[in-house]
Amino acid sequence: MGDRDKDPNGRGRYLQRQDRLRRVLGQASADAILVSHLPNVRYLCGFSGSAGLLVLDADSATFFTDARYTIQAQHEISCAAVRIAKKGLLKAAGELLRGRRSLRRLAYSPAQITVAQKQTLDSAVARKVRWIDDMGSVEKLRAVKDPGEVSTLREAAAIVSKTFERTARILRPGVAELDVAGEIERDFKRQGAEGPSFETIVASGERSAWPHAHPSTKQLGRNELVVLDHGAILRGYCSDMTRTVFTGKAPRKVKSLYQGVLQALEAGKAAAKPGAKSKDVDAAARNTLRRAGLARYFTHSTGHGIGLEIHEAPRIGKGDETVLVEGMVVTVEPGVYIEGLGGIRIEDDIVITARGAEELTTAPRNLIEL
Amino acid sequence: MGDRDKDPNGRGRYLQRQDRLRRVLGQASADAILVSHLPNVRYLCGFSGSAGLLVLDADSATFFTDARYTIQAQHEISCAAVRIAKKGLLKAAGELLRGRRSLRRLAYSPAQITVAQKQTLDSAVARKVRWIDDMGSVEKLRAVKDPGEVSTLREAAAIVSKTFERTARILRPGVAELDVAGEIERDFKRQGAEGPSFETIVASGERSAWPHAHPSTKQLGRNELVVLDHGAILRGYCSDMTRTVFTGKAPRKVKSLYQGVLQALEAGKAAAKPGAKSKDVDAAARNTLRRAGLARYFTHSTGHGIGLEIHEAPRIGKGDETVLVEGMVVTVEPGVYIEGLGGIRIEDDIVITARGAEELTTAPRNLIEL
Repeated sequence: MGDRDKDPNGRGRYLQRQDRLRRVLGQASADAILVSHLPNVRYLCGFSGSAGLLVLDADSATFFTDARYTIQAQHEISCAAVRIAKKGLLKAAGELLRGRRSLRRLAYSPAQITVAQKQTLDSAVARKVRWIDDMGSVEKLRAVKDPGEVSTLREAAAIVSKTFERTARILRPGVAELDVAGEIERDFKRQGAEGPSFETIVASGERSAWPHAHPSTKQLGRNELVVLDHGAILRGYCSDMTRTVFTGKAPRKVKSLYQGVLQALEAGKAAAKPGAKSKDVDAAARNTLRRAGLARYFTHSTGHGIGLEIHEAPRIGKGDETVLVEGMVVTVEPGVYIEGLGGIRIEDDIVITARGAEELTTAPRNLIEL
Repeated sequence: MGDRDKDPNGRGRYLQRQDRLRRVLGQASADAILVSHLPNVRYLCGFSGSAGLLVLDADSATFFTDARYTIQAQHEISCAAVRIAKKGLLKAAGELLRGRRSLRRLAYSPAQITVAQKQTLDSAVARKVRWIDDMGSVEKLRAVKDPGEVSTLREAAAIVSKTFERTARILRPGVAELDVAGEIERDFKRQGAEGPSFETIVASGERSAWPHAHPSTKQLGRNELVVLDHGAILRGYCSDMTRTVFTGKAPRKVKSLYQGVLQALEAGKAAAKPGAKSKDVDAAARNTLRRAGLARYFTHSTGHGIGLEIHEAPRIGKGDETVLVEGMVVTVEPGVYIEGLGGIRIEDDIVITARGAEELTTAPRNLIEL
């Protein structure tokens, strides 16, 4: 991917992120951090490959990869020393830490390293150190996007919005769910996206009420709800959008459910602003459905952050106390799922701005009747 | 997915696999095993969702999932007790183990559980147990396929073979690599596959020499090598096939390299039979390239097992002592990568039979000149 991801301003951006992380580590009295989760590595130094580790201390950053990525690492990384590990990345990182005897309190993420990896690391370090939980510090930084990230996320959202408008034209009874999913993902790539940000959901009829329906060989029927939940990855950044259509003239009941979900979406987005809490956005959407007598059909959280991962901080859910700040990018995605009738979900991506929130998703939100 | 994966004979097949695993555990004096890796869980009880754990002891099997999968688990699982965990799967599994005081030596896979998960598990078990490394015991069972698995893998290989024949017709200068990848993956879904078994590689020109080139917006040029490495997932099982084409009339040099790689492929496949070792297959391919003066351009292993994962046991590499047995399904994929000129790789899937090996891949292997 190298060249696609190269950014002439990359170095400054990555150094700035590394410095922010150093300040957080300082507060936790950590002498260094071992970053093993690839989206975190990418965020801190720009590496987009599948094998990378970063060790950051007060005055240096060292990136480890294997021989397959020698050229790519040269291309992508200008903000860390690059070491090509011959016998495993963790072993190499551990040996570096072994030699830096002033490093005693080492931060890492216990949720992002296996027991076997930790054993490898411990035997490579081979001296007494204090491992401390990094408490998701990189994820917390990642939750607040810089303008460049917001602009990439806007492009990624525009791709799925455009794809949806084309998809709406090919949806008709007789087309298999898997065919629709195939067309959608092909369209992402035609627009230059790396691919889908998660397995595209095309769920029709009864299946639209299943929260985890994978597309199947089932053909769209007449007078069915069809939920399309999809997103594209562009230069590493994920979009996520859901639309629900009806293959026929929608009966009053369906129209009324759809309006309920749409109002919940708008209420959720209207509640999103700096200083509001995640739970306020959730409550705005949930209470709107409650007033319509639909709250019991809304069985999941209202949304989640998007960025280098399709699910990242902050979570937008019941009781979540996270305070929203400018630059956070999240989904708002209320839905109702009624056995026998089907499901309706509508989902937009938004960015928290100085005074409120702005939609990144541009596709129409009205009920499309095919 | 549920119904798609339902097999009227499923129960017997899964019970048989569980019994095989019990015998292995018995040899290691383990009282029970905690299976956390999803492909292993699927192999042992048929569950195809994204959250599942299995605890197996001498006379019981208990499967854990969360509320999202209540219906799917009922559908798919007939060979284990199903428990819906309210507060985390590991916590629930740990509490079950806590209550079974006769279980003292517990097998698990340190490479498939994070440090944080292990901590959760330990505090739920809350009594002294001896955790022992399961030494990849489920992976070893999975390496030898039963006839039903071979038949699914044959179907999955047929899908990519068919797709390739259609792809060859749309390859021409001016088409972007990403467009080709999009067409390929759409075609998989049109044939009823769940999707690609890994990110489809379409690498043209100089990029064909990069072992990890993701498809880009680069258009195919005239007189370029194009490497297509792709595979489909069908009912959970992965195929994997590479073909290399030339966009024009191939010069003598390219033809001669292609013949070298093709001969290495055929030599590798011919060496694959019960009783042979992995390293023999690797050596057969590698020595063929050596005789053609090309060994230095062959920079990776000759192949790998395929099944519920795209890379699984056995590895077909230099010095690997694994003895091949009937029912193993592996790739053979020699290649040469020459900077400035490009890369050529040809890859088939084969199954080890009673007397030799049989090709699952059916697409033509001759050099296609477009």
